[in-house]
Amino acid sequence: MFLEKINKPNDIHKIALADFPQLADEIRQFLIESVSRTGGHLASNLGAVELTLAIHNVLDFPEDKLIWDVGHQAYTHKILTGRKDAFATLRKEGGLSGFPKRAESDCDAFDAGHSSNSISAGLGYVRARDLLGRKNHVVSVIGDGALTGGMAYEALNNAAELDTNFIIVINDNNMSISKNVGGMSTYLSALRTAEAYTGMKIGVTKAVKKIPKVGTAMVDAVRRTKSSIKQLFIPGMLFENMGLTYLGPVDGHNMRQMMKLFNEAKRVEGAVVVHVITEKGRGYKPASTYPDRFHGTGPFDIQTGKPLTVKEAPTYTDVFAKGMVRLGEENTKLAAITAAMPEGTGLKAFQQAFPDRFFDVGIAEEHAVTFAAGLALGGIIPVVAVYSSFLQRAVDQILHDVCMQKLHVIFAIDRAGLVGADGETHQGNFDFSYLSMMPGMTVMAPKNDWELEAMLEAAVNGDGPYAIRYPKGTACTEFQQFQAPILRGKAEILSKGKKAAILAVGSMVSVCQDAVKLLKEQGIDPTFVNARFIKPLDTALLDELAEDHQLFVTVEENVKSGGFGEHVCAYMEACHPGCRVIPIAIWDRFVPQGSIDSLRCKVGLSAAEIAQTVETGIS
Amino acid sequence: MFLEKINKPNDIHKIALADFPQLADEIRQFLIESVSRTGGHLASNLGAVELTLAIHNVLDFPEDKLIWDVGHQAYTHKILTGRKDAFATLRKEGGLSGFPKRAESDCDAFDAGHSSNSISAGLGYVRARDLLGRKNHVVSVIGDGALTGGMAYEALNNAAELDTNFIIVINDNNMSISKNVGGMSTYLSALRTAEAYTGMKIGVTKAVKKIPKVGTAMVDAVRRTKSSIKQLFIPGMLFENMGLTYLGPVDGHNMRQMMKLFNEAKRVEGAVVVHVITEKGRGYKPASTYPDRFHGTGPFDIQTGKPLTVKEAPTYTDVFAKGMVRLGEENTKLAAITAAMPEGTGLKAFQQAFPDRFFDVGIAEEHAVTFAAGLALGGIIPVVAVYSSFLQRAVDQILHDVCMQKLHVIFAIDRAGLVGADGETHQGNFDFSYLSMMPGMTVMAPKNDWELEAMLEAAVNGDGPYAIRYPKGTACTEFQQFQAPILRGKAEILSKGKKAAILAVGSMVSVCQDAVKLLKEQGIDPTFVNARFIKPLDTALLDELAEDHQLFVTVEENVKSGGFGEHVCAYMEACHPGCRVIPIAIWDRFVPQGSIDSLRCKVGLSAAEIAQTVETGIS
Repeated sequence: MFLEKINKPNDIHKIALADFPQLADEIRQFLIESVSRTGGHLASNLGAVELTLAIHNVLDFPEDKLIWDVGHQAYTHKILTGRKDAFATLRKEGGLSGFPKRAESDCDAFDAGHSSNSISAGLGYVRARDLLGRKNHVVSVIGDGALTGGMAYEALNNAAELDTNFIIVINDNNMSISKNVGGMSTYLSALRTAEAYTGMKIGVTKAVKKIPKVGTAMVDAVRRTKSSIKQLFIPGMLFENMGLTYLGPVDGHNMRQMMKLFNEAKRVEGAVVVHVITEKGRGYKPASTYPDRFHGTGPFDIQTGKPLTVKEAPTYTDVFAKGMVRLGEENTKLAAITAAMPEGTGLKAFQQAFPDRFFDVGIAEEHAVTFAAGLALGGIIPVVAVYSSFLQRAVDQILHDVCMQKLHVIFAIDRAGLVGADGETHQGNFDFSYLSMMPGMTVMAPKNDWELEAMLEAAVNGDGPYAIRYPKGTACTEFQQFQAPILRGKAEILSKGKKAAILAVGSMVSVCQDAVKLLKEQGIDPTFVNARFIKPLDTALLDELAEDHQLFVTVEENVKSGGFGEHVCAYMEACHPGCRVIPIAIWDRFVPQGSIDSLRCKVGLSAAEIAQTVETGIS
Repeated sequence: MFLEKINKPNDIHKIALADFPQLADEIRQFLIESVSRTGGHLASNLGAVELTLAIHNVLDFPEDKLIWDVGHQAYTHKILTGRKDAFATLRKEGGLSGFPKRAESDCDAFDAGHSSNSISAGLGYVRARDLLGRKNHVVSVIGDGALTGGMAYEALNNAAELDTNFIIVINDNNMSISKNVGGMSTYLSALRTAEAYTGMKIGVTKAVKKIPKVGTAMVDAVRRTKSSIKQLFIPGMLFENMGLTYLGPVDGHNMRQMMKLFNEAKRVEGAVVVHVITEKGRGYKPASTYPDRFHGTGPFDIQTGKPLTVKEAPTYTDVFAKGMVRLGEENTKLAAITAAMPEGTGLKAFQQAFPDRFFDVGIAEEHAVTFAAGLALGGIIPVVAVYSSFLQRAVDQILHDVCMQKLHVIFAIDRAGLVGADGETHQGNFDFSYLSMMPGMTVMAPKNDWELEAMLEAAVNGDGPYAIRYPKGTACTEFQQFQAPILRGKAEILSKGKKAAILAVGSMVSVCQDAVKLLKEQGIDPTFVNARFIKPLDTALLDELAEDHQLFVTVEENVKSGGFGEHVCAYMEACHPGCRVIPIAIWDRFVPQGSIDSLRCKVGLSAAEIAQTVETGIS
């Protein structure tokens, strides 16, 4: 057992190279067993075992800086830096994060979670190193999927000006979470299938002066055969054209070859791209066969690969998926856009039903939104389905390209509010704030499955920009007796009481129902409102309620700053200063990982706490 | 005079090709004279005269769609679509916009303003066309500067999958507003200096089947000579590698050549890049000599090129520029980052003083912010200087890469609040909202020149993320008697009165001073507070004032939703429900062009209206 010898950073330097393959096997076994119990990201981590070993072999921690893009492939890195024993707590409250975290280890150079930012961060480390006269190495590892994100290209463009060492490793498994798309992907595929070419023989430093003679005849020939050259191909020319040195491709499961290449790369005076070909899910049949299913997985049976917990009820994603197909049948102008997440967003069904009207644009939220703006101007009704925290990438595009032109674009925002095990980087706690600041935007949140579909239909039949945000997990199926039509800016009264009104938003409606029960036990009978619209506010209802209610408690799964509660506060203060408003919202801190229920309690969104607030407020 | 014949879209089709050069001259003369009187964007427009004529010649409006990136080069397009006579009102309130605007003409396909989004919008139009079975052409024109923006690359990556026509024109003048930077720029330069190559002879459709034979010897030769090939060069290979057809480069002042190429391009079944080389400022010596000065200009003397209005007093940008140089001398760890705007942001002085610590990353706000995060982690103190409306591009990076890691990155946010003549797309009215939702962020706004520099110094000497936002134009030099040290989260009392308190933010302090004067004339003596901090709030001061003030009026140059006023409302409602709060802020609409003073009145930020609000509020 070589894994036993790995207990702190750099312990790998004690392992003989000849023993690396066995160590890799042991790590892989450890990962499969561990993740089968806890759940977590598996396929990407199985693909990066040898890559991580090879990188660790040529670096010294924590002096050298290793930056993982997204970070869901860093489990082996965590094992190699002394965190093996923490894997039992993976993604649990207070436990090991599924992503790199500087607070966990000084070998984690950058807290990751979102895509395509590792080159930017790495370049920052490089420039700082040079300014401070240090000599350490900086390595950014980015997947081919993450390379479809524009900021990776912005960073490559900027890195091209470097004349000191910076190693960019492309971990190329031909996948985002799903199959990768776009021109860059096609290009990398061509590189992959080109005959093995390590690039070791070409001069890799800018010191290369000796330019072989090339006659004009050859240049002419090259020109004449431009399209065929594209297939025959000069490996990495695209990167070299941008001013980056390209090494590779290299087999990402052959550690000796990778280490040779990394050692070459360390000598390049400038930014160098090392192209590593890996197999997602490598070494575990179910994961390599179904890499998207094993991208993120719950606990599973190792023998069969089957999940241990069977999904019992439809999620909001399922409801959205079904609704999109129905509406797509009814309206041939409806189209759907995803940024590399057809499964996660539920658009797979729409894709299968209407392949022409489905667009996977790559990990490119900015482009996705402005592309939708163009579609809308061309007469199509686009639905951009995206996770809340990833939509943060496209704030300017929503504001400047969609809202400013009052375009009929629909944002279906999944994983909004608290998301649980993924932690800080994936909580969708800000969308009410950044969306409701935008003039002309309509922002909705459904209380249950019926309402999500109804809101989607209302948005499709509406005009101007719409956002519908809904949480991760099982869709609420209560409240079926409440199916008032969705009218823009109109809330829904669930029960009429007196003195106090609870205005609950989306996911908080069912939580508040429990609070209402608790209050009734105390003899308090508040009016209970499903807010439905964060923007525009139902001011008519607020006016009406103001007549016989003194207290308004708003409850939302969003930060307070810029959220529903502040808007209600400001309105009531202006028009009904005699009424009290208490906004209950997520605290002004980043919310770490944990179960959603537990996190809700932690941030003050429990039924008990809500009831307590109402009780105190009216007394 | 051919220009007289151009009075509505497609009138250009009546002009003989032989007369195009004279028409171009007339347009150029018109532009110089018109902009010399009104001010506006000149250099970019002078560079695009022939390009626009050539495009209009091969398109039919409004069926065909032409999308300008950024849009400050669309003046000739406006002339050719019947808006010549409106140029006297250019960029004035109610007048002709300096950017494409769908409300002005159905020949404007997309409201532009921000950079790098034209390919996304165009691709949307293309996909809509195809879904609806239309046959029109779609042309997106993008500058080489805008090509440094990541979303342009996201769109190219996505466009590579197209099998129907989409024309992308690269208007390459080797400039952003300033000299262009980065690998892509170097690449385009190499293309420019390659021997003329129109690409007309290569097969331009995917129908090309005949692949010339290329022996392996040649492939080997190519490989061996990789670096020299880079200099010899296959034009457009980078684009072709991505899956796009490349045509060019072509002289952007030779209309016949361009038209031939555009007509070729129209036949390509897929996305085609036409590379057009233009000269910024072409045909007017002062503008071609100083293209950055004539990028955006005020009225000027045509003979000398000298501005007619002489700048009298330092702007906030000047104050920031001076402060950065002083702090850069005192602290060798201070670095500065711009996204392609060294002049506009005032960082030019810092660049000259400390070239090693200055980074122009291209039009790449996303990368700029995460690059700053990396610098901060590496031990440097980065200041990201950026215009408010452009920082919207980097909301996720500020939140996810800077705030989540509590990094010491300083955002110097210029052109915040109302900016005037540039209109909707450039107003910086949202930064308080999107910044104050972020946990751990400090958000400040200075009342005058002294305070901007003091806040910058406080931020440099502080820890964690800081944002300082200040407006366009002359820095306020009043209030010099108030120089209380900048303490995080502490406001400054300018005068103690009674009953009512005016809490003014940044640029609104001087406006509110006038309001205070008006109130005193009415016998009302409000307490007057310079808020300084939007986040964190000075709750101690609010508590103190709550003891003997009933009314709090907040005044800020930001939308209400998520702004300072709502935060104060929510705090007072929670802790001092007896007090009234009235937030005065920018209306919930996009604010069109006009003078800043006039716009302030329009949106309710005038001294008279503020005074009126206070007076009514306490009565």
